[in-house]
Amino acid sequence: MAEIPDSPGVAPPGGPTRAAVVGAGSWGTAFARHLASRGVVTTLLCRRREQAAYLTRHRRNPDYLEDIELPSTVQYGTYGDCSFDSYDLIVLAVPSRAYGDVARKLAPRLREEMGFLSLTKGLDPADGRRLSQILQTELAALRPSVAVLSGPSHAEEVARGQPTATVLASEDPAYAERLQRTVTGEAFRVYVNSDLVGVELAGAVKNVVALATGMSDGLGYGDNARAALITRGLAEMIRLGAALGADPLTFAGLAGLGDLVGTCTSRHSRNRLAGELIARGHSPALVEGEMGMVAEGLTAAPVVLALARAHGLEMPITENVVAVISSGKDVRDCVRDLMLRQPRPERV
Amino acid sequence: MAEIPDSPGVAPPGGPTRAAVVGAGSWGTAFARHLASRGVVTTLLCRRREQAAYLTRHRRNPDYLEDIELPSTVQYGTYGDCSFDSYDLIVLAVPSRAYGDVARKLAPRLREEMGFLSLTKGLDPADGRRLSQILQTELAALRPSVAVLSGPSHAEEVARGQPTATVLASEDPAYAERLQRTVTGEAFRVYVNSDLVGVELAGAVKNVVALATGMSDGLGYGDNARAALITRGLAEMIRLGAALGADPLTFAGLAGLGDLVGTCTSRHSRNRLAGELIARGHSPALVEGEMGMVAEGLTAAPVVLALARAHGLEMPITENVVAVISSGKDVRDCVRDLMLRQPRPERV
Repeated sequence: MAEIPDSPGVAPPGGPTRAAVVGAGSWGTAFARHLASRGVVTTLLCRRREQAAYLTRHRRNPDYLEDIELPSTVQYGTYGDCSFDSYDLIVLAVPSRAYGDVARKLAPRLREEMGFLSLTKGLDPADGRRLSQILQTELAALRPSVAVLSGPSHAEEVARGQPTATVLASEDPAYAERLQRTVTGEAFRVYVNSDLVGVELAGAVKNVVALATGMSDGLGYGDNARAALITRGLAEMIRLGAALGADPLTFAGLAGLGDLVGTCTSRHSRNRLAGELIARGHSPALVEGEMGMVAEGLTAAPVVLALARAHGLEMPITENVVAVISSGKDVRDCVRDLMLRQPRPERV
Repeated sequence: MAEIPDSPGVAPPGGPTRAAVVGAGSWGTAFARHLASRGVVTTLLCRRREQAAYLTRHRRNPDYLEDIELPSTVQYGTYGDCSFDSYDLIVLAVPSRAYGDVARKLAPRLREEMGFLSLTKGLDPADGRRLSQILQTELAALRPSVAVLSGPSHAEEVARGQPTATVLASEDPAYAERLQRTVTGEAFRVYVNSDLVGVELAGAVKNVVALATGMSDGLGYGDNARAALITRGLAEMIRLGAALGADPLTFAGLAGLGDLVGTCTSRHSRNRLAGELIARGHSPALVEGEMGMVAEGLTAAPVVLALARAHGLEMPITENVVAVISSGKDVRDCVRDLMLRQPRPERV
């Protein structure tokens, strides 16, 4: 299903027709391929020239999804020096810790009133801002249209055309609906949501909970423990969201629960894997290098904890994850501390 | 952790001290072992004499958890002919389709004001009653204390002392708290909840959703599809619960989301496995026999759908599961029908 034709059709009217995807990690690569299949003329922009050259030559990403061929219609370049003049949609898929820097560097080269779609799940490590807030601030003079895409959407499966359901959030409903028409495909379902706060917080916190479930897996604990962590992790997410003005219903949906479950139980999840490796004795500081992939939860955990503390909230799972990755707390002690917390009535 | 001592300690004061577990399936067997580890003098009651004789001789269940040894303190018998005079707690762990019949047959042999704990997750196939309602009706003259235990608690993991968090629900909070003290162990956490309606409905519906996720797995779909099914399945559960008077917060907790995730993603889940086998072409009518295990979702699905229709609710996942198991609908057509439903704003 969802075969990518080599000569794509035409993008649906009213939406973007030419897109630049900034960041050629696995999700950026899979999404560029998906956009091309939807008839959008797409350029995938890498950080490094060698990566762009390899992609141009082989139509495969040397670092991610190596067995996925990209259609001949996709072009390649580097986002440090390309021109953005011909695009009406900029898709951002760079790690959260580079996000603000990339936005600032692109700003002088962008036109007014362009459309933006953010794929990265995380928060600004410097000050806890949501990533769409970075775009709104850094590009304010350009009056950008901004949306984020979230939900359980492992790149490996999207690239193979497997059924996927996502959430597209924006404060501008007309913009969200135009993008929805463009992005929706036979196997790629898109729901629109106006709760940008909830969708972005959920995307950041779920990676922290995924680290915790990976640690539980790494200790050899089973599906009961994992289900309990996911449930209590969702409660932490809802608590933080309520304090920051999110709609609680967002957390019951695909961007909340859906992505949390997808990330915490998937063989594809790099955050779950990072937690598993840490529980088995790998250094939290080195694990991303060992995996050759970014695990956003490692960046998000201290930021989420700082937000919780600023609002006087208890987030015991997040607190334990930070204690492991920042202070070297023994993972076994975390499990004991979480299991032996004072019994109380169960509530969110 | 949670090693079972061969000479158990003493049960906590105020709670039951002698328990009969009716039904020696995997959960009944694992729970009998757990009760013994909590100092409760426990008898495990089988349906068949040969099974009781085998257990007495080998302290292992020939049909389930074969590698788990039961402590020498556990006794064995058959629930068709034993005396219940010496017990203060009756634990029910028989399949939902036998539940009413077993309750009616035990009634004349039970004392007044005994305590009951129901472990079965399902609804009365005859009339959609919750299983605790069956106990309250059939044993009304005995004024029983009734509670149910739910949450993500695969027998295989509880039997191995792996960390598990559960929900104990009763309309009698004092009874629930006495049982909580008895059942809580180092690796077995028990939260009390007064929403019997929500806890029991969740336990029935989650098995139906697990059949659906198993079918998705069986078609070769991935973690994105599974996460979407779990999310939309929780929405169906919440919708039914709201119509029947449950507390929506129950579904965000361990008995709702927790058990749903545990059942839909676990290698141990028999309902997920049944769905997978059906998607691969096995007959829904024969799959329980092939597995040698009950898959409660097969019994619950039509009962849940009838409840939904009686209340004018849409439950498209449940509807598709029933169409597969009752009318032979092709599983691939279900996926297409669920994915191509008219796009609408995402909400519960």
